[in-house]
Amino acid sequence: MSRFLSSGHAALTPYTPGEQPRDQQYTKLNTNESPFPPSPLVQAAAAGAAGSLNLYNDPACTALREAAARLWGVKPENIMPVNGSDEILYFAFLTFCDAARPIAFPDVSYGFYPVYADLMHIPAHIIPLREDFSIDPEDYAALGENIVIANPNAPTGMALSPAQIETIVRSNPDNVVIIDEAYVDFGAESCVGLISKYDNLLVTRTFSKSRSLAGARLGFGIGSEELIRDLNTIRYSVHPYNVNSMTQAAGAAAIADDAYYEENCRRIEEIRAYAAGELIALGFEVLPSKANFLFARSPDIPGGELYRKLKERGVLVRWFASDRIRDFTRITVGTRGQMDILLDRVRNILEERGANL
Amino acid sequence: MSRFLSSGHAALTPYTPGEQPRDQQYTKLNTNESPFPPSPLVQAAAAGAAGSLNLYNDPACTALREAAARLWGVKPENIMPVNGSDEILYFAFLTFCDAARPIAFPDVSYGFYPVYADLMHIPAHIIPLREDFSIDPEDYAALGENIVIANPNAPTGMALSPAQIETIVRSNPDNVVIIDEAYVDFGAESCVGLISKYDNLLVTRTFSKSRSLAGARLGFGIGSEELIRDLNTIRYSVHPYNVNSMTQAAGAAAIADDAYYEENCRRIEEIRAYAAGELIALGFEVLPSKANFLFARSPDIPGGELYRKLKERGVLVRWFASDRIRDFTRITVGTRGQMDILLDRVRNILEERGANL
Repeated sequence: MSRFLSSGHAALTPYTPGEQPRDQQYTKLNTNESPFPPSPLVQAAAAGAAGSLNLYNDPACTALREAAARLWGVKPENIMPVNGSDEILYFAFLTFCDAARPIAFPDVSYGFYPVYADLMHIPAHIIPLREDFSIDPEDYAALGENIVIANPNAPTGMALSPAQIETIVRSNPDNVVIIDEAYVDFGAESCVGLISKYDNLLVTRTFSKSRSLAGARLGFGIGSEELIRDLNTIRYSVHPYNVNSMTQAAGAAAIADDAYYEENCRRIEEIRAYAAGELIALGFEVLPSKANFLFARSPDIPGGELYRKLKERGVLVRWFASDRIRDFTRITVGTRGQMDILLDRVRNILEERGANL
Repeated sequence: MSRFLSSGHAALTPYTPGEQPRDQQYTKLNTNESPFPPSPLVQAAAAGAAGSLNLYNDPACTALREAAARLWGVKPENIMPVNGSDEILYFAFLTFCDAARPIAFPDVSYGFYPVYADLMHIPAHIIPLREDFSIDPEDYAALGENIVIANPNAPTGMALSPAQIETIVRSNPDNVVIIDEAYVDFGAESCVGLISKYDNLLVTRTFSKSRSLAGARLGFGIGSEELIRDLNTIRYSVHPYNVNSMTQAAGAAAIADDAYYEENCRRIEEIRAYAAGELIALGFEVLPSKANFLFARSPDIPGGELYRKLKERGVLVRWFASDRIRDFTRITVGTRGQMDILLDRVRNILEERGANL
């Protein structure tokens, strides 16, 4: 750090994104991207928008919000598009939390939550998952603190039901409950239907996973008009033009071709079931995933070693060095062909170690 | 505001962006957009990138940084691309300023500086421009505070020389001096050459104006490796994937077609000289602009009234209600045809008021 850095940031540890290597072609199963390209409508819409980039994008994202409102059965006033769902999480922490308003979240969850709390000097109330890596909704009942829960959770893939979420939201009426539904489209149930009932619920979504738009950066906050209004106060104090016009057009086009993405999600679910079955047959424990990834551990090889040996063999998966989950690796569900490459390499690695397959 | 808003934001007044109307076709001279479309290379590059949006963008923006480094004669390590130059300003305030590290800037300048200071609870040291609306570099010499100056300044369009900037940078060695060069390509001189000499200088740039990419959102910070490293600590703690892949591709393509934009800038300068002369002939005082806009006032009509009457006649310009500049309107330099429409409407409005033309 330089002598110019604000002393408030001296101890800050930034988020570590998954590797995005430019040097080599990997079978890339490490950042939960969709293996399917965006809809052809998306490419055409983005290219069209690129012709008039000399004009500013619409800061209100009017057309995109209208399309998203129809998709999710809410009003445009309930929606705030953002430059990737990290940004809505950032805005939510900045808008609703401070030194006197802590935030609670699970010990094993998305790695950006503790980074945002550190950056903004917000007390973090970290609540351990159960032994089986599930969230106990009772831990969050009547907590009296802001809460953020990924549902399905990452990197476990395990999901709560909307009824379980509702008990948390209802019992914390004076706090904001953020439900991060980045992975909800792969078989979990959304709680977006609850926003008309609870003014303290903020649901966040991304088009990076189920809608094949990771490189376009498009996320959403969905909540009561009051919450969205507060979030817009902050957005207009940070950068009002945050979602560029190509991404706005791409997002609206993706919504127009929803059936294409629905089908892709069902394919991912089938491939997930297949890959989970094969990993179990190889001796792995695989957590019950409702996301587009599997979180798995083998009694025959530590997670970090499996990650490294797979990388040597051209397959990228994600490994987290933190205590409770260091035995696991997180494997994105790709195409059937990609999963067969992964499974083949895993088999070789285990055989090399003399595991009894 | 809702009952959930952090009390730290209770008094926050967000930035008001210029109108981006969707309802009607205006002669749009209010947000300093380029009247020229992006280079054809840009549209092709963005469309190409749109085909693989299912994959994440490169968080390091490697190819774009290399192209920008060649353009500006610095190293890739001196550059940080961002989602529009508002974002580099935001990051710089967040990285280098705090309650104990105030920031100084002119009373008449870009409206986002005081908003960022308010949002982050940074003391703002506001220094009046001279009577003639120029910046007195002596006001900033050996100030011992972080400083942000737009050069050319907005909305005045008036510029300091690199030598004047250098006295400010050299005499504040323990503070960061941010020079916001959003409008530098229209005839002012850049101080980017000073970054190898001073580790406390951060130059910010945007591709929104001279490079016809307002809708793509692309800005840059250019500074010493230490400053850029600190800024990246914050960027990786906010959102590492901030510049989407279409915009990265568009930016690199724009740099590859630099001659096209150079020519456009020269055309804007010619049209600026023409429009300024015509406004002066109509009795206006026009500040000496090195930017792609004119800041002008007429003894015959208040700024706010001129703005409203022009809008009624289909021409959008920008008016600021703050005390020192309420007599002025800010007029973007568009095409010759757009300026002729503006001048015609101005003439009509003045005639209607019985001004002696």
